[in-house]
Amino acid sequence: MTSWLLYIPDLVGTFVFAISGAMLGVRRQLDLFGVLVLSFAAASCGGLIRDLIIGAVPPAAFADWRYVAVSCAAGVITFYRYALIERLQNPVQVFDAMGLALFCVAGALKSLNYGLGPVAAVLMGMLTGIGGGIVRDVLVAEVPRVLRSELYAIAALAGAALLVTGKWLGLPDLPLMAAGAGLCFFLRFMAIRHGWKLPVARYDEDS
Amino acid sequence: MTSWLLYIPDLVGTFVFAISGAMLGVRRQLDLFGVLVLSFAAASCGGLIRDLIIGAVPPAAFADWRYVAVSCAAGVITFYRYALIERLQNPVQVFDAMGLALFCVAGALKSLNYGLGPVAAVLMGMLTGIGGGIVRDVLVAEVPRVLRSELYAIAALAGAALLVTGKWLGLPDLPLMAAGAGLCFFLRFMAIRHGWKLPVARYDEDS
Amino acid sequence: MTSWLLYIPDLVGTFVFAISGAMLGVRRQLDLFGVLVLSFAAASCGGLIRDLIIGAVPPAAFADWRYVAVSCAAGVITFYRYALIERLQNPVQVFDAMGLALFCVAGALKSLNYGLGPVAAVLMGMLTGIGGGIVRDVLVAEVPRVLRSELYAIAALAGAALLVTGKWLGLPDLPLMAAGAGLCFFLRFMAIRHGWKLPVARYDEDS
Repeated sequence: MTSWLLYIPDLVGTFVFAISGAMLGVRRQLDLFGVLVLSFAAASCGGLIRDLIIGAVPPAAFADWRYVAVSCAAGVITFYRYALIERLQNPVQVFDAMGLALFCVAGALKSLNYGLGPVAAVLMGMLTGIGGGIVRDVLVAEVPRVLRSELYAIAALAGAALLVTGKWLGLPDLPLMAAGAGLCFFLRFMAIRHGWKLPVARYDEDS
Repeated sequence: MTSWLLYIPDLVGTFVFAISGAMLGVRRQLDLFGVLVLSFAAASCGGLIRDLIIGAVPPAAFADWRYVAVSCAAGVITFYRYALIERLQNPVQVFDAMGLALFCVAGALKSLNYGLGPVAAVLMGMLTGIGGGIVRDVLVAEVPRVLRSELYAIAALAGAALLVTGKWLGLPDLPLMAAGAGLCFFLRFMAIRHGWKLPVARYDEDS
Repeated sequence: MTSWLLYIPDLVGTFVFAISGAMLGVRRQLDLFGVLVLSFAAASCGGLIRDLIIGAVPPAAFADWRYVAVSCAAGVITFYRYALIERLQNPVQVFDAMGLALFCVAGALKSLNYGLGPVAAVLMGMLTGIGGGIVRDVLVAEVPRVLRSELYAIAALAGAALLVTGKWLGLPDLPLMAAGAGLCFFLRFMAIRHGWKLPVARYDEDS
């Protein structure tokens, strides 16, 4: 039941995350294969690393070929229609926030189901949401954007934490997932709109 | 049987891949230890990541000490005889193509044996061939060469795909492996000879 | 028994390694979240990768929430009191050497307990000690310091090798661990004091 309900938004999230990878690949002048690798990395590496950590092998990213297919489709479209995708950046950001919201909640739930403790499950939820973007940026030798700016990871953390807290209180899955994803989406959306950020340490470049 | 037949070329492939890592390490002025780490990373990280994904722990790279020994030997030789190795670059490229051909076929076969689906097995074959080079380049903070140029990954993909298709048709292992490896080697060799490349997206640096 | 004896120094090592990650994060102007990620990466990714390789899932870094808590505490303190931590750099280096000594010995022992062979166990011990620093540096797109300078990895390797050799000879755990950790600490300490280094290959930048 839950899994069917998750499946469609999961593929949508994969598609949108893959677009972020493909756009970076095009900007960095990779060839078509490189763009597809970045699409897949951005879309699936968060869940992939989570699955390795919780012991769910082979990871969903490879156990179901549709994820790879969706990533590749997003990559090919971005590769050949970059200008179009760039003009759609605002809707893409909103979809990306939706993908983040879904991934953090689904990742936390899966981790609980594999027997992880509450703190670990919250972290796994966040990792599911942000891990792909970290691998994507590392692959082009950049400091991951999520480590530097905006309320991206915190939104995922909050959504996962809400879900895990609710499960601990014995609340039912579906409303919890909706609430967790909603909280994550709201925080991320406000961060985009109003430029909400975390503090950066004061540091003089001298030393 | 098959495993004995694979073992010698597998070690040869490991040796040649390790040389590519060691050469990069020397060029980037790493110390001896750094050169050995890059040798091992280039030679074994593709298979290592594959083994983690398909659930073959501990991975072959550590279960058999000979792989580490071969990597280290290649690293030490390259470290102390860099000029010699550089003069041999053409034969090294040919051996590297042979290593790629073998790794992609062996990786796909192992993944099928661990119960992965056909699409995943093809991808695992490719990952076995190119994963080491990706980790090698990430470790020196460069964009992986395989994402930018030449028909490297596609050759591995084609070889793995041929093997998986043949297994699906019920063909016997040995001729299939020879055919898959041969196809990969042929494509890679032609790419080196004739500079075959994938398209790169048109993109203006302005935005 | 052994585990209790290890637990406190393990948390201390985690704390000190986390400080090294947090300091790098502050210097690279990451936001608070980025600093915490680097703290955790530096402190726990060595053991995390080791646990994935030896098949100990979920890894200790997530199975016990205290590791995350200790990393975060170190990250927050460094974020808000960077100047203080920097003035303490000498003691921090000594604590770091103690963390390295403990991690290499504990990592090798755990790998033996999971059935790895002696060569692999020594390498896993070293990986436990240096893996976190490698991930930390890769995350900010730098060539890992351990690949370039000083007797860092070799100290961990020597400590792990002493432990594994002793186990092979049937010696008891505790004195072995003390001896292995002592050797690692001694080598690392002398490297800091006297600038002991490994050779770097002669290489002209021209080619």
